[in-house]
Amino acid sequence: MYVEGLGRHTCPSFHLLLLLISLQVGLHSVEGVWPLPQSYVPSPEQYRLNPQAFYFGYGKQSAAQSGCTVLDSAFKRYFSLVFPDFSSGYGALRFSVDKPFIVEVTVDHNDCEGYPNEDSSERYSLTVSAGLASLNADTVWGALRGLETFSQLVYQDDFGSYFVNKTDIEDFPRFQFRAILLDTSRHYLPVQTILKTLDAMAYNKFNVFHWHIVDDPSFPYQSRTFPDLSSKGAFHPMTHIYTQSDVRRVISHGRLRGIRILPEFDSPGHTKSWGKGQPDLLTPCYKGSAPSGAYGPVNPTLLSTYEFMAGLFKEVSSVFPDSYIHLGGDEVDFTCWRSNPDVRAFMQKMGFGADFTKLEAFYMENIVNITSSLNKTSIVWQDVFDYHERRSSLSVVEVWKQGCYLCEVLRVTKAGLKVILASPWYLDQPGPTHNWARYYTVFPLAFKGTEEQKKLVIGGEVCMWGEYVDATNLNPRLWPRASAAAERLWSDEKQTFDVNKAFPRLKDFRCKLLRRGIQAEPLFVGHCKHEYQGI
Amino acid sequence: MYVEGLGRHTCPSFHLLLLLISLQVGLHSVEGVWPLPQSYVPSPEQYRLNPQAFYFGYGKQSAAQSGCTVLDSAFKRYFSLVFPDFSSGYGALRFSVDKPFIVEVTVDHNDCEGYPNEDSSERYSLTVSAGLASLNADTVWGALRGLETFSQLVYQDDFGSYFVNKTDIEDFPRFQFRAILLDTSRHYLPVQTILKTLDAMAYNKFNVFHWHIVDDPSFPYQSRTFPDLSSKGAFHPMTHIYTQSDVRRVISHGRLRGIRILPEFDSPGHTKSWGKGQPDLLTPCYKGSAPSGAYGPVNPTLLSTYEFMAGLFKEVSSVFPDSYIHLGGDEVDFTCWRSNPDVRAFMQKMGFGADFTKLEAFYMENIVNITSSLNKTSIVWQDVFDYHERRSSLSVVEVWKQGCYLCEVLRVTKAGLKVILASPWYLDQPGPTHNWARYYTVFPLAFKGTEEQKKLVIGGEVCMWGEYVDATNLNPRLWPRASAAAERLWSDEKQTFDVNKAFPRLKDFRCKLLRRGIQAEPLFVGHCKHEYQGI
Repeated sequence: MYVEGLGRHTCPSFHLLLLLISLQVGLHSVEGVWPLPQSYVPSPEQYRLNPQAFYFGYGKQSAAQSGCTVLDSAFKRYFSLVFPDFSSGYGALRFSVDKPFIVEVTVDHNDCEGYPNEDSSERYSLTVSAGLASLNADTVWGALRGLETFSQLVYQDDFGSYFVNKTDIEDFPRFQFRAILLDTSRHYLPVQTILKTLDAMAYNKFNVFHWHIVDDPSFPYQSRTFPDLSSKGAFHPMTHIYTQSDVRRVISHGRLRGIRILPEFDSPGHTKSWGKGQPDLLTPCYKGSAPSGAYGPVNPTLLSTYEFMAGLFKEVSSVFPDSYIHLGGDEVDFTCWRSNPDVRAFMQKMGFGADFTKLEAFYMENIVNITSSLNKTSIVWQDVFDYHERRSSLSVVEVWKQGCYLCEVLRVTKAGLKVILASPWYLDQPGPTHNWARYYTVFPLAFKGTEEQKKLVIGGEVCMWGEYVDATNLNPRLWPRASAAAERLWSDEKQTFDVNKAFPRLKDFRCKLLRRGIQAEPLFVGHCKHEYQGI
Repeated sequence: MYVEGLGRHTCPSFHLLLLLISLQVGLHSVEGVWPLPQSYVPSPEQYRLNPQAFYFGYGKQSAAQSGCTVLDSAFKRYFSLVFPDFSSGYGALRFSVDKPFIVEVTVDHNDCEGYPNEDSSERYSLTVSAGLASLNADTVWGALRGLETFSQLVYQDDFGSYFVNKTDIEDFPRFQFRAILLDTSRHYLPVQTILKTLDAMAYNKFNVFHWHIVDDPSFPYQSRTFPDLSSKGAFHPMTHIYTQSDVRRVISHGRLRGIRILPEFDSPGHTKSWGKGQPDLLTPCYKGSAPSGAYGPVNPTLLSTYEFMAGLFKEVSSVFPDSYIHLGGDEVDFTCWRSNPDVRAFMQKMGFGADFTKLEAFYMENIVNITSSLNKTSIVWQDVFDYHERRSSLSVVEVWKQGCYLCEVLRVTKAGLKVILASPWYLDQPGPTHNWARYYTVFPLAFKGTEEQKKLVIGGEVCMWGEYVDATNLNPRLWPRASAAAERLWSDEKQTFDVNKAFPRLKDFRCKLLRRGIQAEPLFVGHCKHEYQGI
């Protein structure tokens, strides 16, 4: 006996509706692409695909040709995704030789050895006709998005045969910045878990992995310059760290999927673990006139602090190729600073009075200057914007606080700064009211700003904080709820505002994720043809 | 930046406290047994265990000797659990030959080929001294509990050596019935997933698997007598069913771990899927004077219904050896019955007036009589008790409704019936307020009843309904939250009421579960020596 008890579900009528829909729509009748392309014209004309006579290739006019690492490896990957039975060794003998089907990729720029960046076009067009799918894009990153779309167009009938329908697609992302944050400090995530998340991100057309790599509880990043940071600050100095080779693997895995790897080294708060391997970095807290033995945020009064930060960020800037870097700057507790006589003396000297937000702003400005001199664009959490007087030094602000987050978006864009919106996409906590529909019904531009201001909203981010999350529950907690955000960030809002229309499509996409080995949890009662088989 | 937003956590101060505790208590300093034994006297005296010189064996006085399937297979299983490195091929050469250590098991009854039942004693005593652990129990089921306890006493130092301390334990369960319900109708669960759950149940000393095997959405049980039930009522007639051999595997896996397999065939409601394979079983609903095409609960007016039920329960009674059977009886919607003229005529004939609860009681009484004649004790959901006038035919009532569930426990025990308590342990929905502490702070006997009444509370059950749960998210959703209920049901309440004392112990036990391959989610920030490596 099951009850939808009072308060356990906020929208019982919505769930009833979902149930009705799920009973009406057969499991295999909903074919489609998630997130929804900007223009998608399907047709009933059907082509049978023979894996023995199916090829990916480069168009004659393509700036990239065979040898292009990004596309060559994508062709191999997508062959297995398009023909899952075939790649697992099954079905190879079932198909006779047919007329070939070619997916021909043409890109305007040869960026095969580069990295995706904040200006990379992801636009593509895809025309599927008899024997040929033409995929055209400005860049290889756009071609990757088109390959993903193509792979989702292919379906199997009950006999195991593969089909694709005649289709015309013109597609591009609504927002340039579509990110997922993982927190590897509160719990360590094995590298494999991160790589798998990058795979799933590519299926969802996410393009930025925000790696919240260190924080108070642990410092798993193994620094070349400051090896003590992880040897003393990680949960375990050998098993719970990310070596330089691990980091390179993550960056390379992301690059091949058109995903930027954006590291965050959050300071001056959230740095307890840093203090274990770097003496004098943290502020000694005082009880009365003597140090209490406890430590607070980074000590902003010492020259050695900025020397250390310059060294660390110099290394980080060279390790991570992305032009963005996240500097954190959130949730600084002033209690310890206030208790420390040296800090108070410094405040007086600098003329900050008793306003510790000025000290924080001073510190952040120094860090921003360090990273600017390294040619990096810095992102900061909204706290830094809120406390900062000279906002001109800032460039990208991430809005994370709950409440009227669009009010903050309005303020930040009014100041001419770029915004990443995270507030509505905190997915770390699950629960009946924290379901996919909640993350789908988010409207990032529903604030009263000018067109110029709206253009400053460069995208959004799904945050998966690690207090209650590790490799045991990350995947089902992330997917398919993050997929809801993926469609909001990629697709046209006018075509995708309706949860009831989205439900059967997302249900179908979730089965596709399962088929690809992503442990995505169910939306509601039902089944997939291929269930998750892990135990 | 992370925020504990308003309403996201109900007990922030509690969490802060947990954090403080978790920082104080080192990861390897909390050794212990979960659930806590009734009497547990550890000592600092430490014995090194050498896997090359470690044996399980039978005491001379033991009624069971070599060849006892339950204990022989448990010895093999627990060797690997006690020495996880060794069993994975590592460490075999690291140990020189030492004095042997023997775990000597003595049981009073040879129930090696039987099944655990509602009267089985699970009492055991365990004395660990130099070279010898003496485990004494009335039954092999008690010996299994003792072996689990022994396995949890063994720990490794930083060099990989195994140790156990001198210890005296006297132990028995507080409640006889400690169950977990899985719902394989709303989503199909692969057999491997069920077997893994049985493994984890044994680690937690749960002893009943309540298999909610069929329901409205699907009928995966493949019946010998009525094969159409699954061939037409399952999500898929080949891939989404439990064959007779699957069921035998589950029963056997459970038996070897001292776990009863208790099937539920819930009627007259929750039977939509039954109707697909069994014509005329469900009540045709009417719209005005004509059938609407929809079907309601089982049709209680037809002789054929009872003939079918007698046939089905005859089969089920022979397939499942347990003497209990769950008949459901919950959430019957009277709308369809009321609309049907034949049902109304039957009501009149039987003198039920317009009181459909009488019709439901009439139906349930017939089903109870069928299973009684098959020598089965029936469990029903509380609805049946609530609507029944002649309660003497009932025997065990499962209390599931939210609200004042102890009020219901009081009523049921006053009527002299046995109670299984499920209300406070609905774990199917996760969320910040649905954490382990919520399931730990349940006090099943905190009602004003006589001692006799309290004895009628035979135990409790963790319910994992399947609306939002399948193999992708079952394990982290179940564990370690169900472990909280496990301790409440096994251990002495006076020793285990304090969540703050329980926290470091459960954190440690959760790491043990991980080490054994159970995908148990974290309680809070931190790490385990051996993290979950699945991806």
